[in-house]
Amino acid sequence: MPHKIAILGASGYTGAELVRLISVHPTFRIVALTGDRKAGQPMSSVYPHLRHMELPDLIKIDDLDYGQVDLVFCALPHATSQAVIPSIPDHVKIVDLSADFRLRDPAAYEKWYGKPHSAVEMQKHAVYGLTEFYREEIKAARFVAGTGCNAATGQFALRPLIESGVIDLDDIVMDLKAAVSGAGRSLKEHLLLAEIDDNVKPYSLGGTHRHLGEFDQEFSRIAGRDVKVQLSPHLLPATRGIVMTCYLKGDPETVHAALTKAYANEVFLKVLPIGETPQMKDVRASNFCHIGVAGDRLPGRVTVIAVLDNLTKGSSGQAIQNANLMLGEAETAGLMAAPVYP
Amino acid sequence: MPHKIAILGASGYTGAELVRLISVHPTFRIVALTGDRKAGQPMSSVYPHLRHMELPDLIKIDDLDYGQVDLVFCALPHATSQAVIPSIPDHVKIVDLSADFRLRDPAAYEKWYGKPHSAVEMQKHAVYGLTEFYREEIKAARFVAGTGCNAATGQFALRPLIESGVIDLDDIVMDLKAAVSGAGRSLKEHLLLAEIDDNVKPYSLGGTHRHLGEFDQEFSRIAGRDVKVQLSPHLLPATRGIVMTCYLKGDPETVHAALTKAYANEVFLKVLPIGETPQMKDVRASNFCHIGVAGDRLPGRVTVIAVLDNLTKGSSGQAIQNANLMLGEAETAGLMAAPVYP
Amino acid sequence: MPHKIAILGASGYTGAELVRLISVHPTFRIVALTGDRKAGQPMSSVYPHLRHMELPDLIKIDDLDYGQVDLVFCALPHATSQAVIPSIPDHVKIVDLSADFRLRDPAAYEKWYGKPHSAVEMQKHAVYGLTEFYREEIKAARFVAGTGCNAATGQFALRPLIESGVIDLDDIVMDLKAAVSGAGRSLKEHLLLAEIDDNVKPYSLGGTHRHLGEFDQEFSRIAGRDVKVQLSPHLLPATRGIVMTCYLKGDPETVHAALTKAYANEVFLKVLPIGETPQMKDVRASNFCHIGVAGDRLPGRVTVIAVLDNLTKGSSGQAIQNANLMLGEAETAGLMAAPVYP
Amino acid sequence: MPHKIAILGASGYTGAELVRLISVHPTFRIVALTGDRKAGQPMSSVYPHLRHMELPDLIKIDDLDYGQVDLVFCALPHATSQAVIPSIPDHVKIVDLSADFRLRDPAAYEKWYGKPHSAVEMQKHAVYGLTEFYREEIKAARFVAGTGCNAATGQFALRPLIESGVIDLDDIVMDLKAAVSGAGRSLKEHLLLAEIDDNVKPYSLGGTHRHLGEFDQEFSRIAGRDVKVQLSPHLLPATRGIVMTCYLKGDPETVHAALTKAYANEVFLKVLPIGETPQMKDVRASNFCHIGVAGDRLPGRVTVIAVLDNLTKGSSGQAIQNANLMLGEAETAGLMAAPVYP
Repeated sequence: MPHKIAILGASGYTGAELVRLISVHPTFRIVALTGDRKAGQPMSSVYPHLRHMELPDLIKIDDLDYGQVDLVFCALPHATSQAVIPSIPDHVKIVDLSADFRLRDPAAYEKWYGKPHSAVEMQKHAVYGLTEFYREEIKAARFVAGTGCNAATGQFALRPLIESGVIDLDDIVMDLKAAVSGAGRSLKEHLLLAEIDDNVKPYSLGGTHRHLGEFDQEFSRIAGRDVKVQLSPHLLPATRGIVMTCYLKGDPETVHAALTKAYANEVFLKVLPIGETPQMKDVRASNFCHIGVAGDRLPGRVTVIAVLDNLTKGSSGQAIQNANLMLGEAETAGLMAAPVYP
Repeated sequence: MPHKIAILGASGYTGAELVRLISVHPTFRIVALTGDRKAGQPMSSVYPHLRHMELPDLIKIDDLDYGQVDLVFCALPHATSQAVIPSIPDHVKIVDLSADFRLRDPAAYEKWYGKPHSAVEMQKHAVYGLTEFYREEIKAARFVAGTGCNAATGQFALRPLIESGVIDLDDIVMDLKAAVSGAGRSLKEHLLLAEIDDNVKPYSLGGTHRHLGEFDQEFSRIAGRDVKVQLSPHLLPATRGIVMTCYLKGDPETVHAALTKAYANEVFLKVLPIGETPQMKDVRASNFCHIGVAGDRLPGRVTVIAVLDNLTKGSSGQAIQNANLMLGEAETAGLMAAPVYP
Repeated sequence: MPHKIAILGASGYTGAELVRLISVHPTFRIVALTGDRKAGQPMSSVYPHLRHMELPDLIKIDDLDYGQVDLVFCALPHATSQAVIPSIPDHVKIVDLSADFRLRDPAAYEKWYGKPHSAVEMQKHAVYGLTEFYREEIKAARFVAGTGCNAATGQFALRPLIESGVIDLDDIVMDLKAAVSGAGRSLKEHLLLAEIDDNVKPYSLGGTHRHLGEFDQEFSRIAGRDVKVQLSPHLLPATRGIVMTCYLKGDPETVHAALTKAYANEVFLKVLPIGETPQMKDVRASNFCHIGVAGDRLPGRVTVIAVLDNLTKGSSGQAIQNANLMLGEAETAGLMAAPVYP
Repeated sequence: MPHKIAILGASGYTGAELVRLISVHPTFRIVALTGDRKAGQPMSSVYPHLRHMELPDLIKIDDLDYGQVDLVFCALPHATSQAVIPSIPDHVKIVDLSADFRLRDPAAYEKWYGKPHSAVEMQKHAVYGLTEFYREEIKAARFVAGTGCNAATGQFALRPLIESGVIDLDDIVMDLKAAVSGAGRSLKEHLLLAEIDDNVKPYSLGGTHRHLGEFDQEFSRIAGRDVKVQLSPHLLPATRGIVMTCYLKGDPETVHAALTKAYANEVFLKVLPIGETPQMKDVRASNFCHIGVAGDRLPGRVTVIAVLDNLTKGSSGQAIQNANLMLGEAETAGLMAAPVYP
């Protein structure tokens, strides 16, 4: 029996990516799409690439009849999400793709997002949506908060290393390279092709990127002590993809072994043979994450590089992976399509 | 029962695209991959984006055991194809993706490709693989010759117009814009990113592009008289996609009606409402073709624009669509994934 | 003695391009830069690539002291230009880069721009800034109206052919391919890298592109009769450049000879040997225009392709070329830098 | 009196860039261009963007008449350079752009380049061409060896910090992002647009990149002790430019002050106000290098980012800067053109 799915905020990139992935999902059926500014329009006038699909027209959130819905993907902008989610009826399961419920600690939320959370009670119940590490909680959850796309990439690279204690926790450097779609379909000057083509633009330097809140929360939890990484993000002249290059102190073979062991049974997380390097495009438009480990001429130094597609494994693919678990489907349902290369 | 599939020439882009599409095909199973220069290597060292799949290693064509094969996709380079195909055992069905068997007339082949065909007998039996127009022949065929990617785009735009006689057959101008993957994974200077990025490069002007042979053959056949179009190709700073802008003499409403009627029941060919314009990226990595019609301030002028992905609908997707028919599967099996946007 | 130059609207792309070109101009000195929304800021915070130059801070137009100015480049948005230019004191020469004064006929302006012109008197005095064809008028002018970038490209391809009567005036088809910087530094969704990368987007089909007003005006004037071309514009995944592919009825040799003769003494307009094709990137960031001519297998058909950089030869380079003439400098002063390739 | 210039290996990207820069140089005149494989061709058939220049045809090196030459730029491939340079007559000054003479120590050369140097005597006489740090030696030199483009970027970021002792010399991490033109006009699969567009490809990880030889040589010399940095290079989907992100242990204010002081009088090296970040495109096609410094939430951590254009400041622009000094010209002659943005 198909699961009835609604997408809130379907007019953004993560909304469109959800529709794309669901187009070949065996048991998910889209019953409602909301987009307040575009309400009344067919989805195909907002995203003509979906022209071939039979989709409901966009409606306002207030006009959504939750009676017919099993699960909502909430792809609303940050801050809007926390205003909407508390009013969703209890019988509806929720996968949130915004940043609103990723941090468990209200004080941490306020620190990174600059204002108090308006739905602190809900915040407590949200399960952190990094599937491979919260699988059992997610299966049992009504409400899952998807991770940041950069935060997911960095955690796939580092969690097993922090957990197994094979790297120096006080000296973790992460050089982030991120494609523009991570910023959404938003009208900002630096996202224009004329500005970012043939360019690389560092941003949010100095420990100010919001995904640091997630790293702090998760890495400290695993380590049982404070862990604070150093992160420098760079915007790329590319549409999809994230490369996280991690500079670590540790033994390369040990690091590689820890990752290989941790992900031995993971379908989507692929650790390359030591010395092989992943490239960003090798996971494009897919739910896979490739991770490479390289030693250095300097003993005790190791570089770990993780790549994934910010819109798929970093966001909408992860959301479907979680929804699969919440609805009793195979975790990989609808997610096994190979990357698009070239 | 799954169909056992072999891909000859799996190390090129169309080979990799076949594997990608088959990764989610319900009944196709890859049993052999050949690549003479890469024989002995795993497919994942040639295409690391396929790392997650369990695929046979690349072998030499001569080492292929056809006993276990139901159908081969032949993605060999032009000219190699005609050397290999005649020796394939009779029980094996064949979908050729090369240019070798697209032209029925040996003289036409020699004119456009500069040397005599070496398998003239096979050439006679090949069915032209433009699915939507050769559906019944393809269902019954053992051997189907896939079309040129540009040739497919132009035919989707024009066949119904030529057939219904609603345009001037003596004044057809086609401005072709084609992404670089149409040239394959070949080491040519003009395909380097440094050369073609931020660039547009006209090529094969003056009626010299080989796909004109296909237009001549097909358009003249439909019209029952000689039809010769004018074609100017331009190489784009893009990886996937074709835009064919056709300048025609005819009535826009009539032209639009002819296309709409012809494709009313076609799943993959989408005629836009009159005045709407298709964009290349709206069909990326998919088997869909979008077609737009626009009138002009000049009476009697009409512009028809067709877009598709050269590697999917223009080549490997078309091949699978044909194989579906040849093997008794639903024509759309494995091909309904939505385009990748953005 | 240096000429004192002011740039109105210096915060747009054509403004920045003027500054770039003037950075190596032998006799032009920038004395004022205006940008109403950015007034008070240094130019280097709007365009950090100009960080090394000593430039005046941006000011409001109303704060500009024309007493110190010999010539203004007016790079204001369309419609703003006609509000500002009439109040510039008589001693100041003016080169306008907006669309406001390109059309001589107030009715034509109203037709293409959708509202009456507010400075009809000025409109009469403006000299059309296509340097190679209005050289003497420009030398004597106080006020020159720069052409549209696409309009310039098409005219370089076609004026000598219309003038010499070697092509069919009733059947001119122009396929325009234009990079995104032609749309300026404006926040529009279709200009985002995520939208236009790996894409081609047709727009303003059906005879609606405003530069048709310029073609109508200029081609009809030369021909001494109405000439109306057919034009289909396509937006490219590229930052700088225009390719205008013109499909004409005429004899290729005659067409080539007409262009070669017309531009024999032109420094910036280069006609290629017949059969050679220009590529867009070969003129990037320069004031050169390359023009190629190709015959066809169909007798009597000829394709003419012109390429230039919309920001340089199509706009700011043209403006400086005109200012050179107006100020008694060598026409090529500051404009001989070679294109940037790759 | 103009200086007579020959370019050996003019058919590569650095050769073409030299010609582009010399096109507006006040006193350099090109008298010979060599290109062994293209000998006999006009430069404009190898690089049509130079079509407007009057240039000598390409000749074989053996046919070069050094009698008429004041200075040669040697833009030959690595290894070829050391075979050719020893035979150049003594009266000719030489700026080498290859990697052959960058390392002073024959053992270091053999280690990084895999074979013994064939011109060890010449190697001893070569002056290292990092202009801002070897200015006096270069003025007096007959033979200058240009630096690696990545090596130049890293040294501009770090030399003053190593010299002044304000960073931990045992913990220098450099994340390199480099555009494809750094690899030259070479036919390699990973340089195809279809491969590298929408991609980032890490390469030469683990301390194997050859420019490390230069860092070792120069940093150890300055420090008076062994200094070995950690470097991870990443290939970008971009044509021109380098971003070197350096992760250092030190005090941000002190680091910023050291750079600001060191470059206070440098025309081409621009240190941004603390906290501002340079972007790659802001120096495109120019001889400028922008350097930014950012602190971190972690005390004692500092990130220094340097950007330059690999073909200009990283190679051909540097070469001209050095040639200017060697020939008694102003160091900035021909090099003050503003970057091309957008």
